[in-house]
Amino acid sequence: MELLKERIIKDGRIKGDNIIKVDSFLNHQIDASLMLEIGKEFKRLFVNEHITKILTIEASGIAIASFVALEFGVPLVFAKKTQSLNLDKNTFKTKVYSFTKQVEYDVQVSTSYLGKDDNILIIDDFLANGHAALGLVDLVKQSGASLKGIGIVIEKGFQMGGRILREQHIRVESLAIIESLESNTIIFKE
Amino acid sequence: MELLKERIIKDGRIKGDNIIKVDSFLNHQIDASLMLEIGKEFKRLFVNEHITKILTIEASGIAIASFVALEFGVPLVFAKKTQSLNLDKNTFKTKVYSFTKQVEYDVQVSTSYLGKDDNILIIDDFLANGHAALGLVDLVKQSGASLKGIGIVIEKGFQMGGRILREQHIRVESLAIIESLESNTIIFKE
Repeated sequence: MELLKERIIKDGRIKGDNIIKVDSFLNHQIDASLMLEIGKEFKRLFVNEHITKILTIEASGIAIASFVALEFGVPLVFAKKTQSLNLDKNTFKTKVYSFTKQVEYDVQVSTSYLGKDDNILIIDDFLANGHAALGLVDLVKQSGASLKGIGIVIEKGFQMGGRILREQHIRVESLAIIESLESNTIIFKE
Repeated sequence: MELLKERIIKDGRIKGDNIIKVDSFLNHQIDASLMLEIGKEFKRLFVNEHITKILTIEASGIAIASFVALEFGVPLVFAKKTQSLNLDKNTFKTKVYSFTKQVEYDVQVSTSYLGKDDNILIIDDFLANGHAALGLVDLVKQSGASLKGIGIVIEKGFQMGGRILREQHIRVESLAIIESLESNTIIFKE
C-alpha cells in the first residue's frame, strides 16, 4: 500500500536494526484518515471471504480494526489482556508473550462473541515474532469459527512471525513488509 | 442521543444496582456503525471549539475516539497504561485507579503528542467515579494544552465523576446519562 509506505518513510523513526517507531501515526498518536484508507484496503483484499467478524487485540490494533469493521459492516471484537470485573466468566483464553512489554498476558474473549458460524478476519498493527497473532489464532480455533485470514499493517519481514503463520496455511496480508532496517534505512519487500 | 439510548435498552444487561454491561456493542464487541454516528454527534456538540486533538485512554475508548478524530479531521492520541520498550522516555505521567480492574495504573502520553498549542477534546466510553477522566485532565494540564471538554458515551449519573468534573468548570457532554439501575430498570436522565 503506497500511501502507507510513503508515510512510514516520512514519519517512521528507526531505532537500531530491529525497531521502527511509527507512534506518530499508528500506535500512540493515530491518523484516523489513514486508518480509514487502511480499512478500505483490507476490505478490498478480503472482500470475497464472507467475513462476519473482525478480531484484534488491545490496545493498538483497535483503531485500525474499527475502520476495517466499518468497511465490512460487521462487528469488531477485541481480545482483552487484563482481568476485569465486567468481563464474562465464560471466555476463550490463551497466553501471549509481549517482547516490547516483556510480560506474558492472559488474553481473553467472551464466548458470546466468537462462535462456530463466524468467518473471522484478524487485524493487528504489527507482525514481528507472531506471538500476538498466534494467540488470536488459538482463540479462533477454540471457538470453532473459521479463520479467513490475518491483515497486518506493518510486517517485520526479517522476524519469524509471517513465516510461522504462512507455514500453517493461514492467509496473511501485510500492507507493508519491511525487509531490513539496517544502516538506518528502510527497505521494503516488493 | 436517542439511537444510543435505544441500543442501551435493547442490549444493555443490568448486573445489580451499579453495573450495566454494554460489551455486546461498546467495549468488547464493538458496533462500528454506531461508533460512526457517535463520532458525528460529538462533532456536532464541540464543532465550535477548534479542536486540534482527541485524547482517550486505552483500551475501550480507542474505537470511539477514532471515529471522533475522523469527524474532526485531527489526530487521536491514546494514553498508555502499561510500560513499553517502544514508548518515549519523555512522557506526561499520572496515576489512575480502576474499580473494574481493581488496580492502580501509571498512565502516560509522550510529550511529543500533547503541547501548549493544542485544543483537546477528551473522549471515553464510560464516566462513573471519574478517575480515568481526571487522570486525562491531569495529563492535559501538564502539557499546557487547552482542555475544551470531555465527551462521554455513557455517564452513570448516580456516581460522582460527572459532578466532580463539572464543579471544576469542565464542559462534560454525555450522550446518555443513566440516573438509576434500581429494580433492574434503566432510567435515563432527561
